[in-house]
Amino acid sequence: MPAADLAWMLAAFALVLLMFPGLALFYGGMMKGRNALNMFMMVMGSMAVTAFVYVAFGHGLVLGDSVGGLGLIGNPLEYAGWTAFTADDGSDAAYWGAFYTLFAAISIGIVASGGAGRMRFGAWLVFSALWIVLVYAPLAHWVFAFSDEESGVVGGWMRNVLGLHDYAGGTAVHMNAGASALALAAVLGPRRTSHGRPHNISLVLLGAGMLFVGWIGFNGGTAAGANFLAGYVVFTTLLAALGGGLGFALIEHFRDGQATMLGFASGLIAGLVGITPTADAVTPLASLPLGLVCGAVVAWAITWLRRRRVDDALDAFAVHGIGGIVGTYLAVLFASSAAPAGLTGIVFGGDPMLAVTETIAIAVTLVYSFGMTYAIAWVMNKIRPIRVSAKQEAVGLDRALHAETAYDFDRI
Amino acid sequence: MPAADLAWMLAAFALVLLMFPGLALFYGGMMKGRNALNMFMMVMGSMAVTAFVYVAFGHGLVLGDSVGGLGLIGNPLEYAGWTAFTADDGSDAAYWGAFYTLFAAISIGIVASGGAGRMRFGAWLVFSALWIVLVYAPLAHWVFAFSDEESGVVGGWMRNVLGLHDYAGGTAVHMNAGASALALAAVLGPRRTSHGRPHNISLVLLGAGMLFVGWIGFNGGTAAGANFLAGYVVFTTLLAALGGGLGFALIEHFRDGQATMLGFASGLIAGLVGITPTADAVTPLASLPLGLVCGAVVAWAITWLRRRRVDDALDAFAVHGIGGIVGTYLAVLFASSAAPAGLTGIVFGGDPMLAVTETIAIAVTLVYSFGMTYAIAWVMNKIRPIRVSAKQEAVGLDRALHAETAYDFDRI
Amino acid sequence: MPAADLAWMLAAFALVLLMFPGLALFYGGMMKGRNALNMFMMVMGSMAVTAFVYVAFGHGLVLGDSVGGLGLIGNPLEYAGWTAFTADDGSDAAYWGAFYTLFAAISIGIVASGGAGRMRFGAWLVFSALWIVLVYAPLAHWVFAFSDEESGVVGGWMRNVLGLHDYAGGTAVHMNAGASALALAAVLGPRRTSHGRPHNISLVLLGAGMLFVGWIGFNGGTAAGANFLAGYVVFTTLLAALGGGLGFALIEHFRDGQATMLGFASGLIAGLVGITPTADAVTPLASLPLGLVCGAVVAWAITWLRRRRVDDALDAFAVHGIGGIVGTYLAVLFASSAAPAGLTGIVFGGDPMLAVTETIAIAVTLVYSFGMTYAIAWVMNKIRPIRVSAKQEAVGLDRALHAETAYDFDRI
Repeated sequence: MPAADLAWMLAAFALVLLMFPGLALFYGGMMKGRNALNMFMMVMGSMAVTAFVYVAFGHGLVLGDSVGGLGLIGNPLEYAGWTAFTADDGSDAAYWGAFYTLFAAISIGIVASGGAGRMRFGAWLVFSALWIVLVYAPLAHWVFAFSDEESGVVGGWMRNVLGLHDYAGGTAVHMNAGASALALAAVLGPRRTSHGRPHNISLVLLGAGMLFVGWIGFNGGTAAGANFLAGYVVFTTLLAALGGGLGFALIEHFRDGQATMLGFASGLIAGLVGITPTADAVTPLASLPLGLVCGAVVAWAITWLRRRRVDDALDAFAVHGIGGIVGTYLAVLFASSAAPAGLTGIVFGGDPMLAVTETIAIAVTLVYSFGMTYAIAWVMNKIRPIRVSAKQEAVGLDRALHAETAYDFDRI
Repeated sequence: MPAADLAWMLAAFALVLLMFPGLALFYGGMMKGRNALNMFMMVMGSMAVTAFVYVAFGHGLVLGDSVGGLGLIGNPLEYAGWTAFTADDGSDAAYWGAFYTLFAAISIGIVASGGAGRMRFGAWLVFSALWIVLVYAPLAHWVFAFSDEESGVVGGWMRNVLGLHDYAGGTAVHMNAGASALALAAVLGPRRTSHGRPHNISLVLLGAGMLFVGWIGFNGGTAAGANFLAGYVVFTTLLAALGGGLGFALIEHFRDGQATMLGFASGLIAGLVGITPTADAVTPLASLPLGLVCGAVVAWAITWLRRRRVDDALDAFAVHGIGGIVGTYLAVLFASSAAPAGLTGIVFGGDPMLAVTETIAIAVTLVYSFGMTYAIAWVMNKIRPIRVSAKQEAVGLDRALHAETAYDFDRI
Repeated sequence: MPAADLAWMLAAFALVLLMFPGLALFYGGMMKGRNALNMFMMVMGSMAVTAFVYVAFGHGLVLGDSVGGLGLIGNPLEYAGWTAFTADDGSDAAYWGAFYTLFAAISIGIVASGGAGRMRFGAWLVFSALWIVLVYAPLAHWVFAFSDEESGVVGGWMRNVLGLHDYAGGTAVHMNAGASALALAAVLGPRRTSHGRPHNISLVLLGAGMLFVGWIGFNGGTAAGANFLAGYVVFTTLLAALGGGLGFALIEHFRDGQATMLGFASGLIAGLVGITPTADAVTPLASLPLGLVCGAVVAWAITWLRRRRVDDALDAFAVHGIGGIVGTYLAVLFASSAAPAGLTGIVFGGDPMLAVTETIAIAVTLVYSFGMTYAIAWVMNKIRPIRVSAKQEAVGLDRALHAETAYDFDRI
């Protein structure tokens, strides 16, 4: 990678790293105060587990040459072993290892929301390792591994055979994590105690802000260098996020009479999710209403899903699943040939097959993620219950599992 | 833009983005706890409104060719429309659109402090849109739009006709925002309830820290690339900020006997404001006392202004208005010809006309900003009161306007 | 410096700057709520003092040509004076001045933990200035100043005569700061009041997260450009941090039955400290267990040291001193010739002299830091007590020294 490209990619890596404390605080702030630390620990703990799995053999599963040329899974041995990532041959293997480790870790971090406030911590760490191998790695291979005819490398089927357009991981990261969070929540069952209000919305704003800044590295870094595309997606990402916040706030305003900070923050993330698969395919002007519609639909979806039986406590399916789906279909309709991806939306006379391609990818992602995650959690639960006891839940997980409380304001 | 320059500019963009949650937390932490979320919402809400205005036609108003060659306002149509920002012609229009959107948005974010704790949220959003178009856009055009004789482009009058030296927006961003906050506060009238103490100084430090880091992108990014100037202003910015913190603390120490964290944080921002117009014109060694004087003067100004009738609740005029003015005049006196700008301060035998030029620019900025902002707020208030009711103010704006509270620490 | 390298270094600078609010919040969150602001002030105040000392003559002490060619201290006049740092000759003196100012400032920031909750603020500022000149500057010269035969520049003895391998400051920054914190705590004596629990673990996580992200700039920036080495150390740094968090958590799990967020955060920092001297010498795969062992040993060391008489309140010696020592010896044993540094660990048949070299450097660092810091604090304390009164300590330093409280949640 030329030094100038690497200069941006190093910064992009640091920005994506900022998403982890950001996600922990965003989710932790939404919890009741006695479950906040557990939420932090779930995000940071799964990040650590991911690092072990990923550096040992996970990177090969995702970006290695497809086993048997089938496009289903990469070769786990390709980046395994003591000296993987050490070759200074211009391929920057070490850098990419670092960058993609974070992609895997942020995905499982989102899934943590599905277990919010009621999962054993040890079970969560084991689940994380299994999920990275069995759910994330295949999906990421399908979507992120490009075939290269010249060198004979075969990548994932969704990207190369189906011809999916997914700029930075709307399927492999967001819809995947959203559907998985839903599956995990379904196996765990709803929380027993009253859900309570978010204990600290300052943390929610802070976390959303850190995610926002980090997303610039996530989407901007997917351009793989300091180029026009990177500058372009940075703009569309900015605008979609702000559109999303406003869209959510408008729904709240007209439905409830009052826009909330929690809603604005959720809408911001929904806009970011919506632009992730499409940041290179729509114009800046279009990315604002795209984000706005994502935020508005997610605002509606959260309310609708809260009435269902599955307790997706922090709305991961609404924000990441539905937000990603809405963003993808909006791009199918309104993609501009003037944008870097060069796709033409159906509204502008583009090929309607794009809708079919994206629909297949979305459907396969949702079915595979939900099904496989449900299976992992179900089997684990049969072997040993993955849920904490009713008593532990009543006490709060911070005391019960971590022997700590998040705050001690006595005698200030 | 060469890839190496763009690599830094992409990072600088992300840093400037960090200023928004930073500003929201900095201001929100200073409020009473029942008005914190409203403060967050004002900063983030006006950012979203700015994005809509800016991407639709605002970028043309600021950086477009001057209408009629008068240097008063740019051509709003120059970057308007569906395909603006999409041309990959080396001009990086999309990137610059993103970067300058944040300059506009941070300016209105500072103005939010003028309405702290007593403005209707809907009125704030409308005001934001009007302010960006009627106040920010002309001033930014005057200061940021460079003429280019070769291509026949005519820029703003302050920069090109008057010959203002303003490195990164001391006039168009800081004095403008400070004077506007004062005008808005004047129209709104003072808060009815006791002002109370800052509810969370941890957030104030955090916000100030995020602003500090973001300012590296703001001033460093104004160098428009990874060059000597960028490295230089990063150093002067660092030093002036720390000088500012110490200057404020020293005044508090000698006047009150005790230096406060709130004071250090305010002084830090005052130092940053002071170095913004002058970062390329003073030596690193001089930037420390420059910051120190800015911090000290602002410490004194805050106390002095608090006794006036206008309730500039979060001291935006003192910090951004007076801080910027002091910094500018210190550079007029002490600019070093060895610094990249090559200006010679009057103390070192420089041309005294520099003082005249800068004085005209400062006076025009303050008069225009204060006057136009006052007019906008006054007219809006005549049409429909922009202030919340006394009852809403007593309840607190978080509950009254957003149906939320920032914290719920019950039963941890 | 080529523009592409500078592009990354500018971003790295901003990341390192993020470590300061991060460190303040990390330490402040661990304190009781009535001493939190004082902790913030100590970190930010010493940062400001460092800037004055460093820009006046400190940079010469560290990176100037060795006085008398002895390798003991740099020439303080080399970067002193009004026009130092202004030459645009490709040496980027201004940038390096900024970057190294932060290295000095973060070191004294860590030392602040040794005075947590019981030091007069004015005494701390004076101590900071003396420590930078008498402790940090010599050590940093020994370790960071490279000799250059061609130009005849003579650097520090540890690096150039002894042949120390220390990638990014395990000795000069971390062991130094850890030993100095211990010495300061020894002179001050233990806190009188019950230590209490950390008042805000959300801040601890946030601070640790900001330090984590900032460390990417610290270690990545030490590569001095956007090159393979930078990408490499970014990966090893990421992995060691996560290994450290998990290592600490595992010790807590098996010893106490419950892993804490405070422990995970401390382990994360321990892993980062451990990889700092060794990031270029071990493989990514090895950096995970390296971090894990650092985290585990530090978890044990904290408990062991808490039983001693010296009240190193925030465990700086355990985390930075012992963490750095363990990391260094692990690299001595397990360094891989495939890593950029090209060192071969003793386990793989490397030269056992490496152990001797590193042991001498560690021993000299610890003895010099502890001894000189103890002497400074002892002498200052003889002239005028550096400790607050028992009454001030009972009231809490925020009220007693800064006339503030960190929080005021009344009537939300």
